[in-house]
Amino acid sequence: MTKRLLAAAAASALSLAICAPIAAQDAPEPPTPNSVIAEATAEEWRAIDPADLLVMRLSDAPDGSRREVVIQLLPEPFSAGWTQNIRSLAAARFWDGTSVYRVVDNWVAQWGDGEDDKALAKPLPDTLTVVPESDYVTATIRDPEGVRDYVMVPSDNGPRRAEIVINPYIDSYSITGFVDGWPVGLDDEGGRTAWPVHCYASVGVARDLTPNTGTGAELYAVIGHGPRQLDRNIAVVGRVIEGVEHLAMLPRGSGGAGVYAEGEPHTPIEWVRMGDELEAGLYDFEYLDTASETFGKYVSVRANRTDSFYIQPAGGVDLCNIQVPIRRTAG
Amino acid sequence: MTKRLLAAAAASALSLAICAPIAAQDAPEPPTPNSVIAEATAEEWRAIDPADLLVMRLSDAPDGSRREVVIQLLPEPFSAGWTQNIRSLAAARFWDGTSVYRVVDNWVAQWGDGEDDKALAKPLPDTLTVVPESDYVTATIRDPEGVRDYVMVPSDNGPRRAEIVINPYIDSYSITGFVDGWPVGLDDEGGRTAWPVHCYASVGVARDLTPNTGTGAELYAVIGHGPRQLDRNIAVVGRVIEGVEHLAMLPRGSGGAGVYAEGEPHTPIEWVRMGDELEAGLYDFEYLDTASETFGKYVSVRANRTDSFYIQPAGGVDLCNIQVPIRRTAG
Repeated sequence: MTKRLLAAAAASALSLAICAPIAAQDAPEPPTPNSVIAEATAEEWRAIDPADLLVMRLSDAPDGSRREVVIQLLPEPFSAGWTQNIRSLAAARFWDGTSVYRVVDNWVAQWGDGEDDKALAKPLPDTLTVVPESDYVTATIRDPEGVRDYVMVPSDNGPRRAEIVINPYIDSYSITGFVDGWPVGLDDEGGRTAWPVHCYASVGVARDLTPNTGTGAELYAVIGHGPRQLDRNIAVVGRVIEGVEHLAMLPRGSGGAGVYAEGEPHTPIEWVRMGDELEAGLYDFEYLDTASETFGKYVSVRANRTDSFYIQPAGGVDLCNIQVPIRRTAG
Repeated sequence: MTKRLLAAAAASALSLAICAPIAAQDAPEPPTPNSVIAEATAEEWRAIDPADLLVMRLSDAPDGSRREVVIQLLPEPFSAGWTQNIRSLAAARFWDGTSVYRVVDNWVAQWGDGEDDKALAKPLPDTLTVVPESDYVTATIRDPEGVRDYVMVPSDNGPRRAEIVINPYIDSYSITGFVDGWPVGLDDEGGRTAWPVHCYASVGVARDLTPNTGTGAELYAVIGHGPRQLDRNIAVVGRVIEGVEHLAMLPRGSGGAGVYAEGEPHTPIEWVRMGDELEAGLYDFEYLDTASETFGKYVSVRANRTDSFYIQPAGGVDLCNIQVPIRRTAG
């Protein structure tokens, strides 16, 4: 590759480092986010249960290639009412035959179907619950020493305390941290709370005006700069971990609020299934433990790039530029 | 429109407010970014000189529709060496017949041609200059009272002082502000400097490893979350003000660093012209003066949404979520 290229792609497994001059032995190349990740131990990676994945098969692309979007649902305790609704909707095959009907540049791609839509594909499952607005945030607990914050995660063996690792870098919106592989916002007003955030590829529940909180029948994925102003105003339920480009590449809608206008073809959704309903081994992913030593180094390197391409380390990083590393499981 | 919809699109002229219930007369609907902009006076809008626009015509889309990308170049004193090179390249018709050859999801679309590429479309103009790395930042001056910062802008009537209006909201990367319609980062180390920033739709100059600074023959546009770590490391030269979706919708490359691999078609660039070379009136835009009272209100409302869709105002906003309002000139 002889062309001059912009810095290594954050979203790509490839790095410009492969093109960089070989460093002298006594001056090793400074770490990059990718080189830090590459040195993580096997124990620092955590498997993502295929039962927590929502796999959406779109119609084939115009060039005939397959389009699948793999979404990891948020773990409990975050947005649990909505993710339960989403599991019910997938089990009812509710989205099969619906479509992506709204795409707005630097904003969202949105799909599904709503109960007040005359073209409703099929009835909503009667097991859906109405989730209260109070569930946009989750209460945290602080240890007796007042140093560490946790959320309580239900499990078969009783509740587990999951530590929120505080992000040391300043954010425009709030204190932030990471828990069980996810970035969260945090505040202290009236008892500390934590909430999932809107970054590129985040998936949320479209809704009507308050007090409506959305059922989950209509979802969106962020395809632009992280719209953090939506945090705590709308339910984040997951993130696209593979195939977000299939949504980001769709034609933008020219109707009201970016909905496809008459004559603009929707993109059909062939089916949506949970990962554990599909062939074993096809959807095996893992994420880098956000409480691990390597993740801490990774955050630091994201904030201070000193590798060959960089002249001036930023000295800071915003939460949405700290993408939690996710990979397909080797072997 | 009866479907439930996500909050009004930041990137769209439309607002969910059109669907909101009519407020009682004694309780007016709180302002939205769009309602604030709509109340700007004519004097608060500034014309963009078509001579500062770079218009890039791509080949027609697969559906036969026209694809034009309109880029506003940064004004002096920012990145002036590179924007001068870009003007020379446009005058030499250098990009005509080149292509978009690299697209990376949540990162950049990149186009043009490099002098070390065997497939070079035509020779580079011999008027191009090598711009020093020191020009990634611009020196500012402070008034004698030590309160306000300015940059000096060359003009036919001698240099003009352009005030940098400080952004009161915290940013993850630096102090920030706005000058002549553009967001900038600011620091105080060794004499204050200002620099243009990388947000969605920002346009920059691809380059090799330092000390190379790029000629301008290869450009990129950001099609994802603002990669602010690139600020001061690579030259920002402008922003796409219309048609960025034509770049964001392109197929992603599967070759090294997202360059199109063998067999993945590049998107041809038919021509690139400066706006004043094209039919008068076709490319008349204006931006909201970032020193205006209305812009100040707009920033405040972006940080504190209290309109019908919102429950919890963010109380902050990151620089890339304060898009400077730009519109086609009415009439």
